[in-house]
Amino acid sequence: MNKPLSVDLNCDLGESFGAYRLGNDAQLLPYITSANIACGFHAGDPSVMRKTVQLCMKHNVAIGAHPGLPDLVGFGRREMAVTPEEVYDMVVYQIGALQAFVQAEGGTLHHVKPHGALYNMAAGNINLAEAIAEAVYKVKPEAVLYGLAGSELIKAGIRLGLQTANEVFADRTYQQDGTLTSRRLPNALISDHEEAVQQVVRMIKEGKVMSQQGQDVGIQADTICIHGDGLHALEFASHIRAALLNEGISLMAKEVKNG
Amino acid sequence: MNKPLSVDLNCDLGESFGAYRLGNDAQLLPYITSANIACGFHAGDPSVMRKTVQLCMKHNVAIGAHPGLPDLVGFGRREMAVTPEEVYDMVVYQIGALQAFVQAEGGTLHHVKPHGALYNMAAGNINLAEAIAEAVYKVKPEAVLYGLAGSELIKAGIRLGLQTANEVFADRTYQQDGTLTSRRLPNALISDHEEAVQQVVRMIKEGKVMSQQGQDVGIQADTICIHGDGLHALEFASHIRAALLNEGISLMAKEVKNG
Amino acid sequence: MNKPLSVDLNCDLGESFGAYRLGNDAQLLPYITSANIACGFHAGDPSVMRKTVQLCMKHNVAIGAHPGLPDLVGFGRREMAVTPEEVYDMVVYQIGALQAFVQAEGGTLHHVKPHGALYNMAAGNINLAEAIAEAVYKVKPEAVLYGLAGSELIKAGIRLGLQTANEVFADRTYQQDGTLTSRRLPNALISDHEEAVQQVVRMIKEGKVMSQQGQDVGIQADTICIHGDGLHALEFASHIRAALLNEGISLMAKEVKNG
Amino acid sequence: MNKPLSVDLNCDLGESFGAYRLGNDAQLLPYITSANIACGFHAGDPSVMRKTVQLCMKHNVAIGAHPGLPDLVGFGRREMAVTPEEVYDMVVYQIGALQAFVQAEGGTLHHVKPHGALYNMAAGNINLAEAIAEAVYKVKPEAVLYGLAGSELIKAGIRLGLQTANEVFADRTYQQDGTLTSRRLPNALISDHEEAVQQVVRMIKEGKVMSQQGQDVGIQADTICIHGDGLHALEFASHIRAALLNEGISLMAKEVKNG
Repeated sequence: MNKPLSVDLNCDLGESFGAYRLGNDAQLLPYITSANIACGFHAGDPSVMRKTVQLCMKHNVAIGAHPGLPDLVGFGRREMAVTPEEVYDMVVYQIGALQAFVQAEGGTLHHVKPHGALYNMAAGNINLAEAIAEAVYKVKPEAVLYGLAGSELIKAGIRLGLQTANEVFADRTYQQDGTLTSRRLPNALISDHEEAVQQVVRMIKEGKVMSQQGQDVGIQADTICIHGDGLHALEFASHIRAALLNEGISLMAKEVKNG
Repeated sequence: MNKPLSVDLNCDLGESFGAYRLGNDAQLLPYITSANIACGFHAGDPSVMRKTVQLCMKHNVAIGAHPGLPDLVGFGRREMAVTPEEVYDMVVYQIGALQAFVQAEGGTLHHVKPHGALYNMAAGNINLAEAIAEAVYKVKPEAVLYGLAGSELIKAGIRLGLQTANEVFADRTYQQDGTLTSRRLPNALISDHEEAVQQVVRMIKEGKVMSQQGQDVGIQADTICIHGDGLHALEFASHIRAALLNEGISLMAKEVKNG
Repeated sequence: MNKPLSVDLNCDLGESFGAYRLGNDAQLLPYITSANIACGFHAGDPSVMRKTVQLCMKHNVAIGAHPGLPDLVGFGRREMAVTPEEVYDMVVYQIGALQAFVQAEGGTLHHVKPHGALYNMAAGNINLAEAIAEAVYKVKPEAVLYGLAGSELIKAGIRLGLQTANEVFADRTYQQDGTLTSRRLPNALISDHEEAVQQVVRMIKEGKVMSQQGQDVGIQADTICIHGDGLHALEFASHIRAALLNEGISLMAKEVKNG
Repeated sequence: MNKPLSVDLNCDLGESFGAYRLGNDAQLLPYITSANIACGFHAGDPSVMRKTVQLCMKHNVAIGAHPGLPDLVGFGRREMAVTPEEVYDMVVYQIGALQAFVQAEGGTLHHVKPHGALYNMAAGNINLAEAIAEAVYKVKPEAVLYGLAGSELIKAGIRLGLQTANEVFADRTYQQDGTLTSRRLPNALISDHEEAVQQVVRMIKEGKVMSQQGQDVGIQADTICIHGDGLHALEFASHIRAALLNEGISLMAKEVKNG
């Protein structure tokens, strides 16, 4: 495992819909290096997508598609019994929709990160993982596939020759097998900002995280998930950014080979 | 006005949705030269879009995006008070979604034709026409813009330097100003197949159509709308195809410059 | 024209949707006497509807259905070319959906007020007005029909024997024919709170409003529209409530005959 | 277990949506005694609902609400990780919507049968079963709750004092525990019409069915599911109806106590 001296800070943006406002997109952009833009299935609408793409380009933030399940009222957070074929189709559709706005503005689509329940299902289900990776490969083979560090989604991307970004969480605890502790369990969250930063710095510098079972687990940290909503979102984004720079870790999105 | 020796036969395809089947796509494909594929707003879904793109490529039929208003229950046929900005955004989105399937299958997006109420509004409303033309120009400047012959949409496309295709109708009558007779009026439809074919042949060969007011009107016929549903859809498609070939008119979609 | 000594203060509530929060429902409820609850077409979802009904019952606020056009992304504010039959059907559906939550909680459906573009279209279009009135009459004949004061909707309700509530606006100016000044024109809005209150008090006490053309117009003020969002919503609600009470005008929703 | 001399024949109706036609509603109505009408979440729309209610009343067929998951593109057939509270809310909403059309036409809502994935989940998941039963109880306590014979849904209804109808399938085989053989297994379906009829007649007369494991299982047959689509739907409906009458079994929906 290599120890990168740089890391990407990614955040979900463009989650507003029609008259509904969600998130602090404009305020968060200065702190992050890549954005996952909702594509209209679980959140976002065509006008929000265009404006978010424009905002990202203004802030020089790498733009990613953030496809989700077709469940607006559930915000794409409820697992659905979708087939790999359905997943392939809905991901192709959503990448294409976002890519059109990126092209129209003269930018480049940098990455794809599935959202919510789709992200979680793709972490462990090899068939869904392969469907998503295939969709990225077919529509934009230069794009970076973001997924849970070490997950089936990352593995599926590697098998297809895609660039991948292993995502880690500063504020979540880990199990011995490298998965996240379920939110239903106590100790799933790290609420102390210092502790969260230290966990992330160690992941980046040493490629290790201490599991809830008390042993080190190997983990690759290419990109850190920054939460966009919640009371302390901006505060934490600012804090982690400063702390990482202070540790000599540069902040940047993975360069795409030939986008 | 030049008198083309060839014409395009276009038809709306891919209008099924989920469990719902609509149209005779597989049967119609042998008769047409270009297809307008629904993009999920008024009809179609991601899986239907993929399958329809695959079918078109198999039959060597030129593929177009067929963006519509966000009104699934109304099939995009009800006018809505949308702004030019909203129209630009919804058309960019839908072109992109379809284009992704075309790319994934190794094909080329050939054209864009707005659907239903959006088509009708764009024929007469210059602001909406320009919004649609701009969306095409920004996402796929080589694509051909299909619109009602001589309409504001065609004019807006020409002003942007887009290739355009003036659409004519075999089975509709025309007014002195070159617009279609409203369906609410008697004599809007031509039910006799021979008469319909003769009207179209004259449009292609002479660039003229006899209006309901009894005078000739100049009209450019680049593409003929073939209806995909209805009892006699296949029969009429077969009939008009044979009649045009018999008149020495070749059937082909406009070549895109450098798609 | 009678001069009521009481008036109703109504407000749109329950406009949140899924993960999206909108409005200050809990804070507004103490100030109003009736609520128009979104029914899932332009805003609201089943869970929001249930919670809003529960909140209204807790605050003893009269509950109304607030049916809108099927246009979630446009918040029901864009006019659509819907037929009277379509309007009848969508209003029956939405009243029924809300009524079920009201029944489940042991309450009574008090009124129906169409939303946004549907409200505006029903003010001037007699066919759509009759379709809405018919829907109310068929599903809940005891319910009060809310509409723009003196509008076609109110007239259609009266013709069917429905109870009606003429709605007036404190912060909008009026034309000589009793309609609201279009928001596209200057002077459409009254931004001064005192002036707004004085306009409303005069409507209630004298049944008159000074038009933009400088002459008095007769107007019946049964219910006042209180805006639920915006920076000053709560402040204005509090202000108008106090001012009306101070004028000796009691605040209450119209009693339903035999709901 | 009592041995009823009558049985109900139920069928899903009103599954069309907008421009999309599905099913043979008008042709099936003469053969069935109760109808489950889609409520707009997985299929159906307000206009289809009204017309289907009118058709049922014309044919004197008992009218039921057929609520489904909010998944139009998946026709409500894909399981979703919905909470009991979400299920309660979506079922209240859909029952209410249909009930409004029934009231408007002067009819009575007779029953509620959940659709597709919701039906399947409610058969085995006690929490979702109780949520559905509670929704029926709160909105229309006289209504009959239809569910898989012997399922958690039926048990939840009984615990609340609801009338219930145990549903059996003529053309499906059964397991030793009384559940249906999964469609993924061979022998799930009975394709022979005679065999299907004999299975149903024995269920009604003896309260027993032969399981795939070769032993009799007790089963209560209050209502038989008649499939509305497929090539042989009408033929089979006609056949089973005649066969049951021939066996001296009368065909009627369960009477509601005091609807």
